[in-house]
Amino acid sequence: MSIIVQKYGGSSVASTEKIKSIAENIAKRKKENSKIVVVVSAMGKTTDQYIDLAKDISDNPDKRELDVLMSTGEMISASLLSMSLNAIGCDSISYSAYQLDIKTSGLHGKSLIDDINTERIQKSLDEGKVVIVTGFQGINTDGDITTLGRGGSDTSAVALAVKLNGKCEIYTDVDGIYSTDPRKYEMAKKLDEIEYEEMLELASLGAQVMHCRSVELAQKYGVEIYVGRSCSNETGTYIRGGNKMKLEDKVITGLATSDNDSSITIKDFESKYISSLFEDIATKGISVDMISQTAPLDGKVGVSFTVLKEDLDECRKIVGDYSDEKNIIVDNNITKFSLVGLGMKNTSGVASKVFKIFNKNSIDVKLITTSEIRITCAINSQDKMIAINKIAKEFNL
Amino acid sequence: MSIIVQKYGGSSVASTEKIKSIAENIAKRKKENSKIVVVVSAMGKTTDQYIDLAKDISDNPDKRELDVLMSTGEMISASLLSMSLNAIGCDSISYSAYQLDIKTSGLHGKSLIDDINTERIQKSLDEGKVVIVTGFQGINTDGDITTLGRGGSDTSAVALAVKLNGKCEIYTDVDGIYSTDPRKYEMAKKLDEIEYEEMLELASLGAQVMHCRSVELAQKYGVEIYVGRSCSNETGTYIRGGNKMKLEDKVITGLATSDNDSSITIKDFESKYISSLFEDIATKGISVDMISQTAPLDGKVGVSFTVLKEDLDECRKIVGDYSDEKNIIVDNNITKFSLVGLGMKNTSGVASKVFKIFNKNSIDVKLITTSEIRITCAINSQDKMIAINKIAKEFNL
Repeated sequence: MSIIVQKYGGSSVASTEKIKSIAENIAKRKKENSKIVVVVSAMGKTTDQYIDLAKDISDNPDKRELDVLMSTGEMISASLLSMSLNAIGCDSISYSAYQLDIKTSGLHGKSLIDDINTERIQKSLDEGKVVIVTGFQGINTDGDITTLGRGGSDTSAVALAVKLNGKCEIYTDVDGIYSTDPRKYEMAKKLDEIEYEEMLELASLGAQVMHCRSVELAQKYGVEIYVGRSCSNETGTYIRGGNKMKLEDKVITGLATSDNDSSITIKDFESKYISSLFEDIATKGISVDMISQTAPLDGKVGVSFTVLKEDLDECRKIVGDYSDEKNIIVDNNITKFSLVGLGMKNTSGVASKVFKIFNKNSIDVKLITTSEIRITCAINSQDKMIAINKIAKEFNL
Repeated sequence: MSIIVQKYGGSSVASTEKIKSIAENIAKRKKENSKIVVVVSAMGKTTDQYIDLAKDISDNPDKRELDVLMSTGEMISASLLSMSLNAIGCDSISYSAYQLDIKTSGLHGKSLIDDINTERIQKSLDEGKVVIVTGFQGINTDGDITTLGRGGSDTSAVALAVKLNGKCEIYTDVDGIYSTDPRKYEMAKKLDEIEYEEMLELASLGAQVMHCRSVELAQKYGVEIYVGRSCSNETGTYIRGGNKMKLEDKVITGLATSDNDSSITIKDFESKYISSLFEDIATKGISVDMISQTAPLDGKVGVSFTVLKEDLDECRKIVGDYSDEKNIIVDNNITKFSLVGLGMKNTSGVASKVFKIFNKNSIDVKLITTSEIRITCAINSQDKMIAINKIAKEFNL
């Protein structure tokens, strides 16, 4: 009997009504002779409410305690979903991170899963129970609760699928993966399938349904992920390895934008301190995304990079230790604009096409980074909509 | 350095503002050279909100999952209080039931504490930290979260004081223990001290600040309890053993009423099934309080007893298995009215005085139970206020 690991996001469990309808669906699915493990996120806006509570207490709340607070969100939705299944006669049991010994390492709020003990899950599955697991959380070597940060519940689900040798299904409030965000470009097309690598590039841009961590993990262990709308009959999108895919002759698969970043520019920076600066930033668990640097002149360089807005204050302080205030420029008004496609590997000229369109529409490009299958530009946020429309049309997304 | 175990009830941690002012008080207290452990309840109405959520899912929610849901309430307040202390520079760490291995036995929602591993607490105290502990919860032998039921957080606090050999302070939204409820009788007097036994009788009546479980535990291990208003300079009430008390020559110490019970009466009941009936009721974890039985006639008796209103439906079902429906009478309209005092032991005539007052004011007595230091009558709820006024005046409470 195959094991299916389903994950339901916050919007799918936002109310007791929604939880009850998910329970109905799970019970139906179980009758199709499957063993089902369900990973849940916190209900709707719970996480935001907790952040508000913590901010009421302190501008910089203790991170260990913040993780304790956050972890309760998934415990609430897990217990309610399990209650709901039991109430309709479908045996179920919920487990939290402690009970499954979901081992993590790394900083509070940004931990990584090291291992999961699946013994209790296997036992409960063998007893015919649907197993509900709290997503987004684990336990570190001190025995303290940790949270996994962005995309944490997706990562929990994929990790469980890896350990249980099962399939992974991510249920959310969209129909699947789109070539670009349908809320921003209404002619956006839903993809039937997408390669891990392409998904990874799209996901790492922060604007898509799946977070890159979970896709990376799935790719590493070859776990197929299905992404679709919860309680819907429409087919979603499969994320798979290349050998299972009918690779279409399409240069660009997707377009993504993200407003979650700020850029920091440092002028006249002593180039010998560059590595030490980025080391200090990394120690705090802050991810630096786009980096660009000018050629050194008299041992000094100009350097620009982007960080998530939530990390800006902390990062800004570190930069302040390295440079005169007058040489530091922060820009909060940027949008990351990215094009992704395996086809780019073999087709030159994508970049030049993009720059031509930007130029024609007076869109300034502030930073550029590229990979083999991706181009990302930082542009002014107010240029976002026109950039999406012009580029999506040009590349038939 | 002495260890103080403080407990703050739901109303004391109902908002982030209140949590912050409690944190200020704890930090001040710590400077007086004490090691402080703080047990917290869930914030304000959280528990009620959780019950509403669960009732939305099912009329009879799975009890194991209900405990998971309930336990998150204390995790939230514990993490916020610890954040709050850390924010004002008073080192603090929160622990949940899992981390302290608070071992429990018994049914979900009504578990009893078997033991607590205080190693982590001691270590954190030695590091100079204020330790925050989630009240009301534990872990059973299956490794599942359990809750302790009514008065659970008080019991957690006393149990910790026992294990840590510390003093116990219960902070709440009243000034201390009163001879009778000051909301019902405005001339009620606050007691400076009260004997365990008297407190136990008052507490067991459900109408007082402390729950009897915690008082029993304190009495068993000789832990002194202080009860007072949180963040107040007024002195509250000490609950102590007799040898520490200046025993006043007062017949009645307290008066308590409770509207939380219903009575069930069974007519023409085969007396041989009585023990089996009460065994079945006990198996479900339902406490039967007042029991009165008529003398057998042809092997049949009349039997009346009271149970908590929340247990009535379940208890009613069990009774239905034993008796014809026509012989079962349920009365939801009763108030338990009790007088407590160590002085009763040596003074006869308290009962006759009470009955005389009831008789003069046309108050029907439906059930009576007595102990050496207590008289409890079930009366019609509408007679409650007149009974309180007449009796309190007569006994100078």
